[in-house]
Amino acid sequence: MSSTTIPLLTKELESEFQLRTDKVREKMIEAGTDAILIGSSVNIFYMSGAVFRGYIYISTNTSPLFFLIPPSETEKMENIIPIRKPEQIAEKLSEQGISIPRKIGFEFADLSYSDIERLKGCFPASEATDASSIMRKARMVKTDHEIGKMREDGVRQAMVYSKIHRCYHEDMTDLEFQIEIERILRLEGCLGILRTAGSRMELNMGSVLNGDNADNPSPYDFSMGGRGVDPSLPVGADGLTMRPGTAVMVDMNGGFNGYQTDMTRCWMIGEVEQLAVKAHECSRAILRHLEKIGTPGTPVALLYNEAMEMAKQEGLHDYFMGHHHKVSFIGHGVGIELNEQPVVMAKSRDILAKDMTIALEPKFVIPHVGAVGVENTYRVGDEGLENLTSFKEELTQL
Amino acid sequence: MSSTTIPLLTKELESEFQLRTDKVREKMIEAGTDAILIGSSVNIFYMSGAVFRGYIYISTNTSPLFFLIPPSETEKMENIIPIRKPEQIAEKLSEQGISIPRKIGFEFADLSYSDIERLKGCFPASEATDASSIMRKARMVKTDHEIGKMREDGVRQAMVYSKIHRCYHEDMTDLEFQIEIERILRLEGCLGILRTAGSRMELNMGSVLNGDNADNPSPYDFSMGGRGVDPSLPVGADGLTMRPGTAVMVDMNGGFNGYQTDMTRCWMIGEVEQLAVKAHECSRAILRHLEKIGTPGTPVALLYNEAMEMAKQEGLHDYFMGHHHKVSFIGHGVGIELNEQPVVMAKSRDILAKDMTIALEPKFVIPHVGAVGVENTYRVGDEGLENLTSFKEELTQL
Repeated sequence: MSSTTIPLLTKELESEFQLRTDKVREKMIEAGTDAILIGSSVNIFYMSGAVFRGYIYISTNTSPLFFLIPPSETEKMENIIPIRKPEQIAEKLSEQGISIPRKIGFEFADLSYSDIERLKGCFPASEATDASSIMRKARMVKTDHEIGKMREDGVRQAMVYSKIHRCYHEDMTDLEFQIEIERILRLEGCLGILRTAGSRMELNMGSVLNGDNADNPSPYDFSMGGRGVDPSLPVGADGLTMRPGTAVMVDMNGGFNGYQTDMTRCWMIGEVEQLAVKAHECSRAILRHLEKIGTPGTPVALLYNEAMEMAKQEGLHDYFMGHHHKVSFIGHGVGIELNEQPVVMAKSRDILAKDMTIALEPKFVIPHVGAVGVENTYRVGDEGLENLTSFKEELTQL
Repeated sequence: MSSTTIPLLTKELESEFQLRTDKVREKMIEAGTDAILIGSSVNIFYMSGAVFRGYIYISTNTSPLFFLIPPSETEKMENIIPIRKPEQIAEKLSEQGISIPRKIGFEFADLSYSDIERLKGCFPASEATDASSIMRKARMVKTDHEIGKMREDGVRQAMVYSKIHRCYHEDMTDLEFQIEIERILRLEGCLGILRTAGSRMELNMGSVLNGDNADNPSPYDFSMGGRGVDPSLPVGADGLTMRPGTAVMVDMNGGFNGYQTDMTRCWMIGEVEQLAVKAHECSRAILRHLEKIGTPGTPVALLYNEAMEMAKQEGLHDYFMGHHHKVSFIGHGVGIELNEQPVVMAKSRDILAKDMTIALEPKFVIPHVGAVGVENTYRVGDEGLENLTSFKEELTQL
């Protein structure tokens, strides 16, 4: 049957492949690494445009090599080498006249300890170093091709959000509401998985938070919590009926093509108290301000500090980024993974660069009402932040 | 707001907690380990009944200790110790009068290399060993409480499967069909995540395979493949219309409570050729035979060999467990993770034990028709295998 196609090795994407290879090599040189061997789905997808079984070897001075393990196979190409196990890679490199690197990077943060120990054993004479940080830094600034994919995500996610009001009916639970949103997401082409970095992110198709559930902490690294419906997945919707006087926050999966946008909108059930409306408008005002100052060269920490300052000036500090439990960031990079670099927090040392893509989510948790605020995914442009998830932001009734 | 409840530390589950602790300790002693420190969601859930942020320390001679990192917190109990980071654990053990273990196990296969290196750094004087295999072996044989959870999964999954025929309409794509099944799964209480072991399993809510797509290989470790709809997730439904003369195989998420059952049923679109009907009946005959011989003491490899022999005797070997690409197993343990121990394959050295739970999936891929066969999740009982996913198995028209 069909063999694996590696999109980035096709003629049409030749220059794209070169761009990404150059970006990775630049970060390798900064890290003093001669070569890296990557095997995680996320980084294989980044360097090939597809997920296959195997590894990609990238060195600073030879063309990247693709090692494919069955059942993954492709048409024969000079830079594709079939293997049955990673132990064959060093020998295959020798056959290609490539010397064993003095220092080789593996994905310390993306693969298990067992997987890395096995790969280290394949290069016993080389010094092992971390490739996860190299790949994360390379992926932080997107190419035009990647931004095109994320634009497509944003348009499709906004299309789904435009239908959310149809998912609601009176006396519905938050979970029933979420399930109807999941269906329209999937019908619109959402792939239904959520790739995240680190071990502290587990979620189904997204988060719907209503009323006081927004103030329940969760063990995960998301901006908002929620109790969930089972102790095995304590996050998000808790299955209670959505009552008048509460807000419902929708932060659902925006992944349609291997990339994703991250987008949050809120609605009221009936009318909510003025404090919640004020906080929601403060979130929008923060975004408008950050959109202006978010130009290349701006310290990421400044985005955080300015947002925090605006929340304080409105007397909303107690509710900003959580009420009983607060998180210390207001946004994050987004791309193939939901939580990419940079993290928008006070202690960030990153500087915004053109074509970074970041999700900004200044949110508030108002007691008895729930979570309010807006999240958009932006591209950093010369004139400021360009919104990839354009859709009405007002707090309206469902 | 609400603090984390640790179900296994409640009075009602005291004996259950003791059972699991004893099982883990037995495997620790076999591995010659004084203590283990676990931090993966899967094993934390196993030892506590909930996912929290933190670690559990289990030694052979002192009571397990729970180290909780904010925002996770519970009511005060003597075996719960709040920490801010794992670097505090060794000191907290000293405060409890517990000496640093000579040999300590970490989850080499469940946590990233970075995570494990950090934990190793917290115990610089101890020899680090693998806790993943210890936990997998302990979890292989289920307690009555766990089997109760899986019985519940089976009943709910069968309830969903009884509604699947309502999801179909003529000229539907496999993906549209899958999306309707996802909705009824979620409405029935499916949590919508799939916990798997290893780095080679990525899937959304499950797999729906129709026609020739069943013969497309995927890079993942599932029994069946499928091309998927995007190269970033090359598995499962491919978005083509389901045509008369084909079969559709439904192998969807059975996780409702932290545990899961694994269940596959097939339907025909119109009528399919006799070879497919014969293969489907062969799958059922294999299951009936394995249900009888699957008693405690039976070598797991025998299940595989007998199944293979039956497929050969029917002249169906070419289609068994794949056609162009074949996998080398016909089943696997199932529980908190979809792919637990034992793996039912020829080279298995495991022996069936009472209260193991295994999914058996003798499947066939018939050219131009698609995949046929049945998968059930079983408990190993004294009289043979007890089916937890009881539901009609016949190949009928949708």
